[in-house]
Amino acid sequence: MDLRSFRGRERSGQYLIEGIRHVARAADEGARIQSLLVAPSALSNPFGQKLARRLRRSGIESLQLPPALYRDLTLAVEPQGLAAVVWQSWTHLADAKPNRNSLWLAVESIDSPGNLGTILRTAEAVAASGVILIGGGADPFDPGAVRASMGSLFSQRLIRCEPREFIAWVRQQGVTLLGSSPHGMFDYRQHRHPWPAALLIGAERRGLSAEMLDACHSTVRIPMAGRADSLNAAVATGILLYGMFYRRPHPAVH
Amino acid sequence: MDLRSFRGRERSGQYLIEGIRHVARAADEGARIQSLLVAPSALSNPFGQKLARRLRRSGIESLQLPPALYRDLTLAVEPQGLAAVVWQSWTHLADAKPNRNSLWLAVESIDSPGNLGTILRTAEAVAASGVILIGGGADPFDPGAVRASMGSLFSQRLIRCEPREFIAWVRQQGVTLLGSSPHGMFDYRQHRHPWPAALLIGAERRGLSAEMLDACHSTVRIPMAGRADSLNAAVATGILLYGMFYRRPHPAVH
Repeated sequence: MDLRSFRGRERSGQYLIEGIRHVARAADEGARIQSLLVAPSALSNPFGQKLARRLRRSGIESLQLPPALYRDLTLAVEPQGLAAVVWQSWTHLADAKPNRNSLWLAVESIDSPGNLGTILRTAEAVAASGVILIGGGADPFDPGAVRASMGSLFSQRLIRCEPREFIAWVRQQGVTLLGSSPHGMFDYRQHRHPWPAALLIGAERRGLSAEMLDACHSTVRIPMAGRADSLNAAVATGILLYGMFYRRPHPAVH
Repeated sequence: MDLRSFRGRERSGQYLIEGIRHVARAADEGARIQSLLVAPSALSNPFGQKLARRLRRSGIESLQLPPALYRDLTLAVEPQGLAAVVWQSWTHLADAKPNRNSLWLAVESIDSPGNLGTILRTAEAVAASGVILIGGGADPFDPGAVRASMGSLFSQRLIRCEPREFIAWVRQQGVTLLGSSPHGMFDYRQHRHPWPAALLIGAERRGLSAEMLDACHSTVRIPMAGRADSLNAAVATGILLYGMFYRRPHPAVH
């Protein structure tokens, strides 16, 4: 099964992570590791060697690969010699129960895996309760997304669903849905809204669909000076998520 | 001269932009275009064709290229058939005169051209007076930076200098220098400081050098929840720049 392709990941329910930091974090967070891939000639870091031994001893199978095959399989630009096949972990929407002050992130579709991974990293930093991927867009288990997430992938609750299911969930759970748009009704800093709440973001160029905009309780924009008419999707999401994070009823900030 | 390499760009003082949107924005902003590169078979967009004609009529030389050569020269993944060789535009540090409420961005070194371009895009949105590149790091005229900047490159005042010159400028001009660091002294939201001010950011993993931290009046951090210990460099810069933008004495927000 080729885990470099979306199809291969979908069919197997697995994905690949490369690099000592990522494998260590996956193990720490209790991600289900199926097997280790090791290129002994490239694994010179003592911490990485120790980690590989520890995981093998815990019963995880370990495959030794020649460097060229390792590089080809992992798509790593600077291979560290330690990779792992990990089981994808998805939460069912029905198990996503917002509490009074929870903050959620909903993604209608982000095209760039790097942007999606960067956004997952920010979601962790604002203690988002979960990231809901609606319909299509980039795969959070794409190698580019995994890399950019810097390990946040293992601790985030990931949910995927269809637009209709999402809209029904928002209504049933009494979640305030805020759409991000350059033409949003409110400057996000001034907007006060009930909690729990979810920020909804759309694709890099197209933005949110009419269906999704229609489901939003309101839309928020980021003020911009000069001739700028938009920000990078991951930057805009970061600014908006932090804006909501600060206004949560009982923020848990350290 | 190979404008795909840093060396080629340095020697020629030129760089390459690809795509109709970028060429149109360069022309609008008065960037000095040396020549157009056109792959007629790929340039099917009527607006792009019209733009190419208009620029030719204004006296800019136009070179027709076969598709394969065009693609090779511009490194475009989805070539639009219209590219341009543009003269780099740099401002001297001596000509950078901060006024009472101006906001500057100083970059000690960002490794990823994509991150640097994304940061330039945000700098435009917060009406930064200029972006000062200190010492090494990514080239703002790298194709990846140009792409990510989405045209902000043409309107931004870009300055480059050595660390010593920068520190002297900060002192002479009475600029408050705020360093970005995950271990910063102040939560950036609470920090009040005199203006003009400059935000100083360091490399993705290494952060700011000891020399630069020493030159800062204070350092600021972004609060983070959970196990997160850092954000993507472009996201963190966006959050901090917006935080400063909002607190400027006379913000020019629309």
